[in-house]
Amino acid sequence: MENVISPRSGTSFTLKKGQYLKVIDPQGEQVSDIYCFNQSNKSEFLSSGRTLDYNEGIHFGKGSLLYSNQSNIMLEIVEDTVESHDFLLTPCSKDTFKHFYPDETPVPGCHGNLVSALSPYDIPEHFIGTTFNIFMNVKLDENGKISVLPPTSKAGDFTIFKAHMDLIVGLTACSAGESNNFSYKPINYVISDQN
Amino acid sequence: MENVISPRSGTSFTLKKGQYLKVIDPQGEQVSDIYCFNQSNKSEFLSSGRTLDYNEGIHFGKGSLLYSNQSNIMLEIVEDTVESHDFLLTPCSKDTFKHFYPDETPVPGCHGNLVSALSPYDIPEHFIGTTFNIFMNVKLDENGKISVLPPTSKAGDFTIFKAHMDLIVGLTACSAGESNNFSYKPINYVISDQN
Repeated sequence: MENVISPRSGTSFTLKKGQYLKVIDPQGEQVSDIYCFNQSNKSEFLSSGRTLDYNEGIHFGKGSLLYSNQSNIMLEIVEDTVESHDFLLTPCSKDTFKHFYPDETPVPGCHGNLVSALSPYDIPEHFIGTTFNIFMNVKLDENGKISVLPPTSKAGDFTIFKAHMDLIVGLTACSAGESNNFSYKPINYVISDQN
Repeated sequence: MENVISPRSGTSFTLKKGQYLKVIDPQGEQVSDIYCFNQSNKSEFLSSGRTLDYNEGIHFGKGSLLYSNQSNIMLEIVEDTVESHDFLLTPCSKDTFKHFYPDETPVPGCHGNLVSALSPYDIPEHFIGTTFNIFMNVKLDENGKISVLPPTSKAGDFTIFKAHMDLIVGLTACSAGESNNFSYKPINYVISDQN
């Protein structure tokens, strides 16, 4: 079953060890932020810093492993038609909207949407750190300056993750203009036992 | 008063809003990891992702602002003779030692030393995220691969931070071989009301 996350919103679900999560960009140029927790210990969560360290790089694609703050593998990318993702930046939030889009009415952003979506699992807001930003196209120039460019994902592109432990997962359709070429689209996802 | 952090160890202290923290590399080529918490709300802590976002880059020096997970400024770099620091990687830990130095007996690393040093303030281990790694020389190549090079800091080099809120601070003399050109040296620091 293909589930739909409406534009500028988020959802949550559990994923069993060994299950697959396919995240699809149905229209193209749309970012989706993912964050996850060990289902049996919510103090263990996705860690950008640990993952960058073990990955020895900031680029991710098929075969990449995403680690927890306790150095355990949470997710493995097993298929990927995009291979352009970001794991440097925090999810957009009311605060980042005020900073980057001072003329717009602030929306909850992926951070706020993750807080709401994960509330049934009693996840405290401050446990939600730097998300893995699927399809987000972040470039660094030779001086280390960050640019956020339109995603390279086309309609129907996808990334498939395999769970390496029982997880609570939060997933969004990103709300930030710059990240999505200034048009807000849905994100689809499929959970399955077989890839 | 110049305080000394012994090689491969850590300490903690409070810093009042407006106070200055001078972190000195007394012998050269030595990294020091810093992490901090809002003294009146320990759920507010240093955030790599938020800081990279607002800094719009991964390089830091005089004038750089370090943000919390709640988008508030925690520290400002007001003087800096090195301007080569890292804010991508988690502090070294027993787990990262096992991964990167499988032939060495694992030591607590900066993560373990921060856990111990911050325990008098009842900081849970999982609140300690990606540290700001002072003097750590991390390079990214055009493919996004990470290299950890010897620090460019010479004996007597320093970075001065100004506190923008009342803080609990953890500070280390880093334990990881690669980060310190494979020699473990002390870190000195001075807290003062005037710069």
